[in-house]
Amino acid sequence: MADLPIRFGIIGCAEIARKVSGAIQFTPDATLSTVDGRNVEKAANFAKANGFPPEAKIYGSYESLLDDQDVDAVYLPLPTSLHLKWAVLTAYPNGEARGLERCRTVERTSSGQKPVSDKLVVVNSCFTFCADPDFVKNDIRVKPDLEALGALGDAGWYGIRSILWMANYELPKAVTAIRNPVLNEAGVLLECGASQLWDNGKTATFHCSFLSNLTMNLTSIGTLGTLHLTDFIIPYQEHEASYTTSTKPGFNELVTGWVQLPSEHCHCGSTSVSVHGESLLSLNNTCNGLAAPRRMETS
Amino acid sequence: MADLPIRFGIIGCAEIARKVSGAIQFTPDATLSTVDGRNVEKAANFAKANGFPPEAKIYGSYESLLDDQDVDAVYLPLPTSLHLKWAVLTAYPNGEARGLERCRTVERTSSGQKPVSDKLVVVNSCFTFCADPDFVKNDIRVKPDLEALGALGDAGWYGIRSILWMANYELPKAVTAIRNPVLNEAGVLLECGASQLWDNGKTATFHCSFLSNLTMNLTSIGTLGTLHLTDFIIPYQEHEASYTTSTKPGFNELVTGWVQLPSEHCHCGSTSVSVHGESLLSLNNTCNGLAAPRRMETS
Repeated sequence: MADLPIRFGIIGCAEIARKVSGAIQFTPDATLSTVDGRNVEKAANFAKANGFPPEAKIYGSYESLLDDQDVDAVYLPLPTSLHLKWAVLTAYPNGEARGLERCRTVERTSSGQKPVSDKLVVVNSCFTFCADPDFVKNDIRVKPDLEALGALGDAGWYGIRSILWMANYELPKAVTAIRNPVLNEAGVLLECGASQLWDNGKTATFHCSFLSNLTMNLTSIGTLGTLHLTDFIIPYQEHEASYTTSTKPGFNELVTGWVQLPSEHCHCGSTSVSVHGESLLSLNNTCNGLAAPRRMETS
Repeated sequence: MADLPIRFGIIGCAEIARKVSGAIQFTPDATLSTVDGRNVEKAANFAKANGFPPEAKIYGSYESLLDDQDVDAVYLPLPTSLHLKWAVLTAYPNGEARGLERCRTVERTSSGQKPVSDKLVVVNSCFTFCADPDFVKNDIRVKPDLEALGALGDAGWYGIRSILWMANYELPKAVTAIRNPVLNEAGVLLECGASQLWDNGKTATFHCSFLSNLTMNLTSIGTLGTLHLTDFIIPYQEHEASYTTSTKPGFNELVTGWVQLPSEHCHCGSTSVSVHGESLLSLNNTCNGLAAPRRMETS
């Protein structure tokens, strides 16, 4: 485990970085140490507008940020097609490993609550939103050279990640696309889905779309319990994260109602430790599990 | 439209008939006119135990019930493998058509609420329950000669029907099974799922199982709205039917929360008109739409 706080660097001043930098500032175990646009002035304006601490360094090139020994983990809010290059350069600057993550998982349930089931059996995940006609034609997320995977790369990612989270990051043995995905004129996915299969019989399905009403559902069913979220990516309210669990419910004698109804839960964050802060704590743990932050190697 | 009330006859004294006969008695537009076991004594005991009206006729053979001109619609709580024979004999006694239905659809939303979307895009439906080891080996629902389709015939039916309901009963163009269903030693399905595809790009998935925690979710997403139910077959409480709708929600500026949150709705039935009564009203409408009750033809 690295010393806390984890010091984050951000490569790029994308819109989504406004949100994530705010979340980093909320959490007590992570600090924002650097921001970087392709020119210093843009980066400085971004830092000022988003309340970065005075000690945060401002760089004018991505490479400069990667050379900073005070950065433990890097957040990449770049278009997907740029991820490979900058992820590799971020993870192995000068051949050393560093933790990185494109975004965060909402880790809402405590360790005692996540495995509500004796054995995980099936997961269904869905993230859709209805983009306007201009988005479907011109947004960077539907351009072959910027987000070649379209809805799959932008929205499907969340569903896939949520499924992997439930599967303790065990990769499926097989993935089968649902027939007839929708593509735009340039051949970029606007809507698609797939089923996933594991060796132990566990199955999952996900659906993602730029063409349907905003919906973000996650249902995970085991032999003894069910976990259900309807806002698993962006919580309805910034400081609240709600979910429903159901453990071994059944029916009454005439099968006219349930006994042992599902329970609703809500985690409410304080002003200093928000839901997103909790998410980033989880991200820190994930980073520590996947790749040792550089600080560990140099300390 | 037939004259009301619709007079129901029940073929068989199965456990589920206790529930459905109670529901028939709840609704003002349907009456229970006949019950039939394979012997008169069993039928009489069933009628008495379940509060049938004194004028309800009791028969000792299925054929006798089908000959009764005062029966408008027949409920068949028989094992699935017996459905074909008795459904045909019920629908066409002496060559005449009669309305029939194995069970009912929960029609919770008013006509103004069902099409929450401009165009239906995707539906996901799931019905699972975790049967005990004895059920998985010995229940009639896992016997090849009584329920050859196992979980698909018993539990999957509800998911498929809910999807068809959302699709206004338009049949899909293609149905593709999710890989690796689970079967018992006799080759009967214990768990399976499938995706469905329509000509206009609409897709649906369903999952059914005897091996997972009790869960019954239905999510239907259109371009402008989402309908979500978590107890779409058996409501949590007998006299309440709840569902959530979401119409054109979006995110706040920093994408840290939603604007236009989903709305929860609850239909509460009185003692005389229960949720199941509402369901049966819907069933009556369905009967009238699918096959003219015999009374219409003879009146």
